[in-house]
Amino acid sequence: MTGNSFGHAFRITTCGESHGGAIGVIIDGCPPNLSITTADIQYQLDRRKPGQSAITTPRNEADVIHILSGVFEGKTTGTPILLLAYNHDMQPEDYESFKHIYRPSHADYSYHLKYGIRDPRGSGRASARETLARVAAGAVAKKYLTEQLNIEILSYVEQVGSIRTEMNYQHVTPDAIEQNAIRCPDPKIAPLMIALIEKVQHAGDSIGGIIKGVIRHVPTGLGEPVFDKLSADLAKAMLSINAVKGFDIGSGFDGVGMLGSKHNDAFYLEGNEIHLTSNHAGGTLGGISSGADIYFRVAFKPVSTISIEQQSVTTDHQVCTFNAKGRHDPCVLPRAVPIVDAMAALVIMDHYLRHQALK
Amino acid sequence: MTGNSFGHAFRITTCGESHGGAIGVIIDGCPPNLSITTADIQYQLDRRKPGQSAITTPRNEADVIHILSGVFEGKTTGTPILLLAYNHDMQPEDYESFKHIYRPSHADYSYHLKYGIRDPRGSGRASARETLARVAAGAVAKKYLTEQLNIEILSYVEQVGSIRTEMNYQHVTPDAIEQNAIRCPDPKIAPLMIALIEKVQHAGDSIGGIIKGVIRHVPTGLGEPVFDKLSADLAKAMLSINAVKGFDIGSGFDGVGMLGSKHNDAFYLEGNEIHLTSNHAGGTLGGISSGADIYFRVAFKPVSTISIEQQSVTTDHQVCTFNAKGRHDPCVLPRAVPIVDAMAALVIMDHYLRHQALK
Amino acid sequence: MTGNSFGHAFRITTCGESHGGAIGVIIDGCPPNLSITTADIQYQLDRRKPGQSAITTPRNEADVIHILSGVFEGKTTGTPILLLAYNHDMQPEDYESFKHIYRPSHADYSYHLKYGIRDPRGSGRASARETLARVAAGAVAKKYLTEQLNIEILSYVEQVGSIRTEMNYQHVTPDAIEQNAIRCPDPKIAPLMIALIEKVQHAGDSIGGIIKGVIRHVPTGLGEPVFDKLSADLAKAMLSINAVKGFDIGSGFDGVGMLGSKHNDAFYLEGNEIHLTSNHAGGTLGGISSGADIYFRVAFKPVSTISIEQQSVTTDHQVCTFNAKGRHDPCVLPRAVPIVDAMAALVIMDHYLRHQALK
Amino acid sequence: MTGNSFGHAFRITTCGESHGGAIGVIIDGCPPNLSITTADIQYQLDRRKPGQSAITTPRNEADVIHILSGVFEGKTTGTPILLLAYNHDMQPEDYESFKHIYRPSHADYSYHLKYGIRDPRGSGRASARETLARVAAGAVAKKYLTEQLNIEILSYVEQVGSIRTEMNYQHVTPDAIEQNAIRCPDPKIAPLMIALIEKVQHAGDSIGGIIKGVIRHVPTGLGEPVFDKLSADLAKAMLSINAVKGFDIGSGFDGVGMLGSKHNDAFYLEGNEIHLTSNHAGGTLGGISSGADIYFRVAFKPVSTISIEQQSVTTDHQVCTFNAKGRHDPCVLPRAVPIVDAMAALVIMDHYLRHQALK
Repeated sequence: MTGNSFGHAFRITTCGESHGGAIGVIIDGCPPNLSITTADIQYQLDRRKPGQSAITTPRNEADVIHILSGVFEGKTTGTPILLLAYNHDMQPEDYESFKHIYRPSHADYSYHLKYGIRDPRGSGRASARETLARVAAGAVAKKYLTEQLNIEILSYVEQVGSIRTEMNYQHVTPDAIEQNAIRCPDPKIAPLMIALIEKVQHAGDSIGGIIKGVIRHVPTGLGEPVFDKLSADLAKAMLSINAVKGFDIGSGFDGVGMLGSKHNDAFYLEGNEIHLTSNHAGGTLGGISSGADIYFRVAFKPVSTISIEQQSVTTDHQVCTFNAKGRHDPCVLPRAVPIVDAMAALVIMDHYLRHQALK
Repeated sequence: MTGNSFGHAFRITTCGESHGGAIGVIIDGCPPNLSITTADIQYQLDRRKPGQSAITTPRNEADVIHILSGVFEGKTTGTPILLLAYNHDMQPEDYESFKHIYRPSHADYSYHLKYGIRDPRGSGRASARETLARVAAGAVAKKYLTEQLNIEILSYVEQVGSIRTEMNYQHVTPDAIEQNAIRCPDPKIAPLMIALIEKVQHAGDSIGGIIKGVIRHVPTGLGEPVFDKLSADLAKAMLSINAVKGFDIGSGFDGVGMLGSKHNDAFYLEGNEIHLTSNHAGGTLGGISSGADIYFRVAFKPVSTISIEQQSVTTDHQVCTFNAKGRHDPCVLPRAVPIVDAMAALVIMDHYLRHQALK
Repeated sequence: MTGNSFGHAFRITTCGESHGGAIGVIIDGCPPNLSITTADIQYQLDRRKPGQSAITTPRNEADVIHILSGVFEGKTTGTPILLLAYNHDMQPEDYESFKHIYRPSHADYSYHLKYGIRDPRGSGRASARETLARVAAGAVAKKYLTEQLNIEILSYVEQVGSIRTEMNYQHVTPDAIEQNAIRCPDPKIAPLMIALIEKVQHAGDSIGGIIKGVIRHVPTGLGEPVFDKLSADLAKAMLSINAVKGFDIGSGFDGVGMLGSKHNDAFYLEGNEIHLTSNHAGGTLGGISSGADIYFRVAFKPVSTISIEQQSVTTDHQVCTFNAKGRHDPCVLPRAVPIVDAMAALVIMDHYLRHQALK
Repeated sequence: MTGNSFGHAFRITTCGESHGGAIGVIIDGCPPNLSITTADIQYQLDRRKPGQSAITTPRNEADVIHILSGVFEGKTTGTPILLLAYNHDMQPEDYESFKHIYRPSHADYSYHLKYGIRDPRGSGRASARETLARVAAGAVAKKYLTEQLNIEILSYVEQVGSIRTEMNYQHVTPDAIEQNAIRCPDPKIAPLMIALIEKVQHAGDSIGGIIKGVIRHVPTGLGEPVFDKLSADLAKAMLSINAVKGFDIGSGFDGVGMLGSKHNDAFYLEGNEIHLTSNHAGGTLGGISSGADIYFRVAFKPVSTISIEQQSVTTDHQVCTFNAKGRHDPCVLPRAVPIVDAMAALVIMDHYLRHQALK
């Protein structure tokens, strides 16, 4: 009802503003007896953190995760898990200058209209810093899925601006994704993407792109008819990430031009096992997992914060100009990769537990 | 948790299989004192029903709606509204022939794996006939939004196969949409779309396309941070519709190639009122409505049922062939237009009521 | 959020007014492959229906149940089950005379203040006729619990006015409960209860009492910490029944005077099995089932409708008198027994499925 | 679904074990612009804390509350509020001795069966220390209800063992409740209760009792038909508190012996205003608030932890004895008073916001 929770059986509730006391998340519904340490979580947080490479925001956020409940002697107990990262190095003066400005394409305006009050420091609750909580919770889900069910979740940058890799998602490995700063597994295309971002960064501007997500070894039967289709919940999960404006699964937008006779994925037998000749569906039939790979695309707009002067208005309705002055992230995609991973893990984990209830 | 409900404050729960006793929906949370009659609902159902034109399925479904609770002397009372359409003309022999076949790209296979049992008549619960319930509930929401809040919701066919109208969504009227069988408001492009569908139909095949949705006069402040963004809930709503494989809002997938300096929508003043110079965001900022038009695209794959023989396998793992033999719908898009309308209305209505709780 | 649903994993949503088109319920989350027929449900409805004995209301409600979805060839399919009983014999003139009166201790007044409109026919949605839907859904849950898990749920009238049986709940059988019109298994006390009710009935008055509920062979581990304790959900379930004003479990209100050393239920070993020397807790520890019998009491106030003239006021604030004139039920308890059964079954079923999600 | 959240529109999610890192709560849905400081919350926590008087547990818990999100410059912003109290002075040796014992009437046994693992330190998640989170969240709700709506919530000890005050709830003031250690507003009865507790304490034993709750100036129309009746949600809220075994509202268990003609609360006019001649209903009609005072009783069993040797069994099924050795709380009632207050405030706040959605 109130918007800060996600999932039903594996349910997370996040809290925290960019410059408040902490970013936190309560995970409710994690199965007991899962081994979990801060190190398991920290690895994913480090993939998300600012300042990890030359092509991301220069801010340096420590993002040290603390486990404050739900784990006893290194194992989950079935009770709610509180994960917390305290906020540090908050310099109010950085934000003082624009606290009365509705920054273009930021949530300042809509939050103000909704609540009549907002925390202006670093975008407050609308800050992408909130996704830290999701990545932390997603790391717990991902560990369960990997260890208990052998499910593999990975995502990577497929497109920056109009530069795109044609690499088949089936051949992508986690290692290949981590081999460069942009998290594109294609060694020929990655440098072109990085060069583009550097050029954009130099101009004080920003650029968007597309992340591809892949989920392998998905058990059959996950997803609920009719509203909570696995595909529908993945769509919601991805659109809930800051700057995301689009999602498609399987053939997606490209599939609209195909004929049904070409698009249909035929069943065939290999011994007594049923397989599919193709996977245009992207791993679900009627919204329920078929066992085939799930793959999807997530479209990110260019981030709103740029170092170029823009026209805007103040909260008391005066014309003004705004310039973020060098503190911007020219392309969020490499840092968004672990966020997409996390949201995918949360959706699969939730639906896995929901499906268990029927057994 | 169980997947057959949608919404929180304006919550619908649907039931019914294609060939069971009825398709039904309970609406819980409808405000009292809204005038509602079966005629208000029937108009939308008639836009969804099969057999309404030469380019849709020849099946003839009556789809007469009944109001069985929640309305007294023509007005809603605040109590749950049960809407029901009884199923008729169910000819079991039509389905007997393929009840043991996993039809390609249908949900037969995944439902069977999930539940170990399924109603094979007309795809059972996975049938698009389920969307009748959504259209009925959406008609109630739409009436409230129109009458009480002056919100306008409309959608139309923007693309069939690779034929696309370039018409600006801002100029589209409800009347223009209804002027042809394909529900495309562009009088030059609509005949081309229809010709393509007729050609596909003649070949026993099917074709996909894109529906554009538009919501005008949206109050500011709708949508909840951080997971229940208005955009995220619209994405889920659309992906929950049969055959939908993609969604984007505002600039969407096309926006990924833009620079931030071009993509950002600047605020400006007109008198004392704040306006936007552009609307790449598509009506939300940080997932909360800004008052600008919401517009989005919904990608439909070609429908799975075609009249061409296909290879498949049976439920007892034998190779077989399958042919739907002339009962297919070459392009679901014109009939899907009221479904997109309905889902959009349900999302807006739910978020409107949720936002009221804060006031 | 909206109040007409109960449960999470086994979730029911009810609809219908006393004199609208129908009373209905959608069950979402029922496991597949459960055999269910209208006869299974009808038996429980008949225990609830008016007119079944001389000491209940003389109204004759047919209450024939229809299964309109979710069942194929006699078995549940995992999809939502719609159960419906159409309303008949609605004579508007019966209610015309008091539609402008706020009847004492009825919900007329509070519904009117809440919604600004209400269906005055037979108390509308506030009618105990709504419980028909619960009994129908509860019958489905009860069948699953009995057949799949060997759980036994029964309830009986323990007290009418100040006449009370001292029979130990452990010795009560379903057959003993059905041997008389009051549904008290104590053959010595039941006639006294019936005599009291006849006396009250003759005076045009009504009387309250207590129903005892018993749940045997409960699996261990049902119930969730900390808010959704099994005991807390049973309390809510019972207080949601019309005319219920109290609930206690185990030693309940009588236990407040005991010392801890007497109240504590000690563990002991029988072979290698752990047992309890007593059961003051009433079958839960920390809100989670321990495997011991669950037993609880439900307090019913005397029903509001009596055949004695009472002072009241009209909806337009005029003094008036009100007399229900012979159509009243002197004691709802025998008819409430299947409602208590049903609510207990719904709670256990829901928690059973929720617990499965963890496995 | 997972049990650690309460409420829908004003929703709290709690976390933390007795001896883990912290006890915490996220409040989601608090209206913006409410002034709130740690001092507002601390006052209620201090009423709950151990060691506050000679008749409670001698443990000394600091319970300092921290606000880590959702508040900016002293005001709520509409975003989730994280309240946290870190755990201190955890001496593992205190609990080492009985970590393999199923203590009588504790949740050790049922948690172990449910999860296969548990945090044995100080009862882990089943500890009454969890209620600290509820009291903190309830303090926020209570502040809103008092300041914005003039609603008064108070509760007090009505009975200890068999010693009971006959004081009319209508005459009780907050000040009178705080004038003695037992929180009974009756100056004649309070010393008798305290003397009883001292005697029980001296014997190493414990004793139960009853807390009465009162809610004044409740707006009309709160509560939802049919399952989420205000009375039903109060019942659930109270039964979710550790050691609570019973709840009744209005005439409750005492009303079952009354005739309807006596129990019915008649409406009358005072000028043009509608009033009630009596309040046996306890402030709700059909589960919806009528504007009359809500009053209810909550039955607490004697606490399980006593300083008398008891028989028990170990987790590896050996016979053993158990003695808590002086660390016990002979009567939780005075410390439970703020918990009852808090749960009542959470229920009213949630239903107030839910009702707003309809307006």
